[in-house]
Amino acid sequence: MHELCSRINSSKENLMNLDVVMNLAVVLIPGLTAKFADPIETQKETLMTNEELFLAVAMNGWKGNIERADKMFYGLSEEELLKEVAPRKNRLIYLWGHLTATHDAMLPLLGIGQRLHSEFDVAFISNPDKTQAGIPSVELVRKAWREVNGRLFEGFASLSPADWLKKHGDVSEEDFVKEPLRNRLAVLLSRTNHLAYHLGQTALRPK
Amino acid sequence: MHELCSRINSSKENLMNLDVVMNLAVVLIPGLTAKFADPIETQKETLMTNEELFLAVAMNGWKGNIERADKMFYGLSEEELLKEVAPRKNRLIYLWGHLTATHDAMLPLLGIGQRLHSEFDVAFISNPDKTQAGIPSVELVRKAWREVNGRLFEGFASLSPADWLKKHGDVSEEDFVKEPLRNRLAVLLSRTNHLAYHLGQTALRPK
Repeated sequence: MHELCSRINSSKENLMNLDVVMNLAVVLIPGLTAKFADPIETQKETLMTNEELFLAVAMNGWKGNIERADKMFYGLSEEELLKEVAPRKNRLIYLWGHLTATHDAMLPLLGIGQRLHSEFDVAFISNPDKTQAGIPSVELVRKAWREVNGRLFEGFASLSPADWLKKHGDVSEEDFVKEPLRNRLAVLLSRTNHLAYHLGQTALRPK
Repeated sequence: MHELCSRINSSKENLMNLDVVMNLAVVLIPGLTAKFADPIETQKETLMTNEELFLAVAMNGWKGNIERADKMFYGLSEEELLKEVAPRKNRLIYLWGHLTATHDAMLPLLGIGQRLHSEFDVAFISNPDKTQAGIPSVELVRKAWREVNGRLFEGFASLSPADWLKKHGDVSEEDFVKEPLRNRLAVLLSRTNHLAYHLGQTALRPK
């Protein structure tokens, strides 16, 4: 299935390579945990529990999409980043800044730490593209993207599978008792989908 | 965070409502399992295991995206479905057919059953849009989409959390020993991302 998407369709920029999540190598995130970090150890010496397997698959999806975004955004020139993905739609720089701000907001939501770039919100979340006179430069967005995602990966390394099932930062203890799926894992999966959603849009950019 | 995406941006069709995965109600899929199906029971009488919670969050993401796609595609007229999402890009009917064929292929991949519409592949997977003289009609795609996703939901109801960690249909037993993340859960999450990816594209359609 996944090969079909990337292999056959000649307008493949409109489609998505489904292979990323299938590849074990992708899950072996440096610094995630000692147990996950060494493929040899993972495969030969330790057996992952079901909880660890569930988490590893989810983490794999996040990492694969981050890698795809890295490759795409870092491959664009400043001129290309200032173009719209389609006529009268968001510019690529806006989408990149929007994703950066969204990921930055995951830091407190997952209990990892304070936000690093809350100043991005005015430019990339609370206002539409092309309405603000001064937005962060391409260089600042590029740096913040790396910084924020790096900090997230560091934070992920300190969370056990059970930690991922604890409440996220935007829900009260009281509500969480009634709605136990408002947990950190839900944040991870919804933000992975959010990233894929906007990556789909970037694939439509004129080339 | 998710409110910002749907609330503030006036060009919100370019963004994504992150709320879906946050909402417990969404996970209570009719027919999933007796244990999951009744919110009262889930909250008051049974405690979900960690494995069940992991799966419920993943299932929530799938269901939320299917519901978003349902609302969007069923809300389009035939005329609108025959339009391109952006100049010289895929038509909406192609994306809908492509998603239908992709989901249809999940049936054997997840061990649920045989494909229902493998004839969709020629029109919607193995060839680009606008290259085939005859493709399935809007009416056929509409019907197949409902049928395929309904069959998937039925199949999901019979899978336990441990079943989701078993190998998917495209990996050998031998490879699975070395690559234990090539499991059914990985298929579910990657196809959820794939759906979000193309939904992002449909949001760019001229309105």
